[in-house]
Amino acid sequence: MNASIITIGDELLIGQTIDTNSAFIAQEFNKVGIWVKRRVAVGDVAEDIAQALDEESGISQIIILTGGLGPTADDITKPLLNKYFGGKMTTDAAVAKHVEHLFHNVYRRPGPIDERNKKQAEVPDIAKVLHNARGSAPGMWFEKIVNNRNVVFVSLPGVPHEMQGLLIDEVLPRLRQHFKFPHIVHRTALTAGMGESMVAERLLDFEARLPQHVKLAYLPSYGMVKLRLTSQGTHAEKLDAAIDLYFDEMTALLQDILIAKTDQPVEALIGHLLLKENKTLATAESCTGGNIAHLITRVPGASKYYKGSIVSYSNEIKEALLNVEAGVLESDGAVSNATVQQMVKGALKQLGTDYAVATSGIMGPDGGTAQKPVGTVWLAAGSEDKIITKLIQLRFNREQNIETATLQALLLLRKVILNEI
Amino acid sequence: MNASIITIGDELLIGQTIDTNSAFIAQEFNKVGIWVKRRVAVGDVAEDIAQALDEESGISQIIILTGGLGPTADDITKPLLNKYFGGKMTTDAAVAKHVEHLFHNVYRRPGPIDERNKKQAEVPDIAKVLHNARGSAPGMWFEKIVNNRNVVFVSLPGVPHEMQGLLIDEVLPRLRQHFKFPHIVHRTALTAGMGESMVAERLLDFEARLPQHVKLAYLPSYGMVKLRLTSQGTHAEKLDAAIDLYFDEMTALLQDILIAKTDQPVEALIGHLLLKENKTLATAESCTGGNIAHLITRVPGASKYYKGSIVSYSNEIKEALLNVEAGVLESDGAVSNATVQQMVKGALKQLGTDYAVATSGIMGPDGGTAQKPVGTVWLAAGSEDKIITKLIQLRFNREQNIETATLQALLLLRKVILNEI
Repeated sequence: MNASIITIGDELLIGQTIDTNSAFIAQEFNKVGIWVKRRVAVGDVAEDIAQALDEESGISQIIILTGGLGPTADDITKPLLNKYFGGKMTTDAAVAKHVEHLFHNVYRRPGPIDERNKKQAEVPDIAKVLHNARGSAPGMWFEKIVNNRNVVFVSLPGVPHEMQGLLIDEVLPRLRQHFKFPHIVHRTALTAGMGESMVAERLLDFEARLPQHVKLAYLPSYGMVKLRLTSQGTHAEKLDAAIDLYFDEMTALLQDILIAKTDQPVEALIGHLLLKENKTLATAESCTGGNIAHLITRVPGASKYYKGSIVSYSNEIKEALLNVEAGVLESDGAVSNATVQQMVKGALKQLGTDYAVATSGIMGPDGGTAQKPVGTVWLAAGSEDKIITKLIQLRFNREQNIETATLQALLLLRKVILNEI
Repeated sequence: MNASIITIGDELLIGQTIDTNSAFIAQEFNKVGIWVKRRVAVGDVAEDIAQALDEESGISQIIILTGGLGPTADDITKPLLNKYFGGKMTTDAAVAKHVEHLFHNVYRRPGPIDERNKKQAEVPDIAKVLHNARGSAPGMWFEKIVNNRNVVFVSLPGVPHEMQGLLIDEVLPRLRQHFKFPHIVHRTALTAGMGESMVAERLLDFEARLPQHVKLAYLPSYGMVKLRLTSQGTHAEKLDAAIDLYFDEMTALLQDILIAKTDQPVEALIGHLLLKENKTLATAESCTGGNIAHLITRVPGASKYYKGSIVSYSNEIKEALLNVEAGVLESDGAVSNATVQQMVKGALKQLGTDYAVATSGIMGPDGGTAQKPVGTVWLAAGSEDKIITKLIQLRFNREQNIETATLQALLLLRKVILNEI
């Protein structure tokens, strides 16, 4: 069962918006066994949208469109769909009532609803209307016979949380009723500390022995490599059992660099460890500027083990709030082994936690010296008993340096918690 | 001049990776006047890549491919391109030397280079090789006559900083030599505090009067609306002058909700203000968990005005490090007007800055009560003279609630700095 995703909007073609909707849809489709064959982004141009509909309906049986449904004048998707499927625009009473409810009771906007928002209730009469609990633009479900196959087209608004709600609550249940899906299984392992090509060298024999229906993919990012085994078929239990055997074999070969046998971010893995051990964590960030704290607190329930952070971007704060000695800052500098050690000690004491992690470095584009060029980062993680430090040298731009230093700090913290160092 | 972007990789189709490369390419192309007509994502399947090449070269004169060039076995792009353009694989001496340099001098890997990485130096002999200073996979430039037009195909690695470096250093200069680009101008205004449809109502007459060659687009996100005017043509100066007039007219209509007349994130605007006033900033974050600090420190040079943050995720830290009174936490709760006020005061004192901003709220999915449901957030921003607070009620998921609260806090801080409240 193939699907295509068509995202609509000039903002995608001038790079003003990063398309996160497609990734969400693809993830949810994968879980139920729908393979996204292609993703296409087109501008707010009727003929380009129509061309994409023509092309994708020749390839896939499920076409998801996102975007182009808002109330403003650059939105042309709805009239185009009406024409494409040969319908007539009519006002849907339920949507009209819902828009009124939203404006009066939820958004609490005074006065009458403007014409543009009233128009949200106008839908092609040949569409099945999908209720958008989170916004005013309804989803729409169309069907059409293409090359003797019944193809389903679903149009969703582009606002991420509205699209997500509609997909989960309305689209997936209907697709499940409509089609009989095959079973897809993925098993993902996370490794760190070895490059993609060296991991691949090690798995060369393993990969050569994999049967046709099992695929291995490498997904490198920021010094880690994710390995994903995928298979699909009709017998769910057989498939699960088979892929489990290959997964066990693969992870055994990667024992020394294996971080996890699940597809979870490192900050979530650390959360599980801390919860299990009933321990608490603090962070003391300089060059990562709060990004470690941000990742940790993005995990639901982080307040059970995470107490907080001192983001000591200036040296005064390192001294005043983390008790880093002025002498150390002078002799060794802020980006040094001694400073990050004292930052960990300061965080443990000031925030009263079992573990702490600290960073100090030069993220660029300015601030580098001959001795400490841009990308020089000292990391430290530890507890009252032991503090481990690590020097890394990054070669990316500012944003990617911050992301990489954050991830490396989390990996170091994980090792300390597991007592692997 | 139209371009198409083809992104390659199963990871894009199962949603494991969010495609940021396309946005970067589109932004850079826009600056020089290349219009990205379509973006297509396909899997690691030779015939799907070939089909995309066929289709896009019928539409666009510039085709950029990213991904599928790494050293591992799931990468099939290079042999496919070799076959598609009718070349022969040969070892490029310069690339071979560069790969050796990278492995020995930059990555400092001991021992000989493995076979997979050696293969990076194998390229189709009909390709012009583009030097990848940041990695081992070279870029490749192909040309082919399609429908009597000379079409340029450029294949780039998928690793973002490698792709970005190649695009800027190698691809754009060559494209400029190869084609004569039209002139494209954009003017972007940023508004806050009014919904997309109400902004559109206000601009109804203005938009109706715009000439054919000027387009207006609405880009809503997290309580803000970006408005972009775009025009293209051959006379750069005429075009600039014309669009400046329309832009002035539009921004005059939006005076009361206008945040900026440039396309910059709010944290960068705040940085400019603080630099200009020679003032300093601290943050005190609870529910945003370090994300405000992260955004502020993502801006290069932030250390000139930003001193740091106390991320007080637990109540103990609010008391111990921000001097929030235990009595207030008990009577009003952590998510309250009184608490965020005291957090601002505590941050101003503890971090010794001119301004501070604070957040406390319930981001979900758990932790809500009848009185304070998930999404309840108190914000405060101020200086020694005056502290302003604001209550917001969010309706998204945890991640989007964090992003929205962060943005709203930054907007409040901006108003305080500008003395608009």
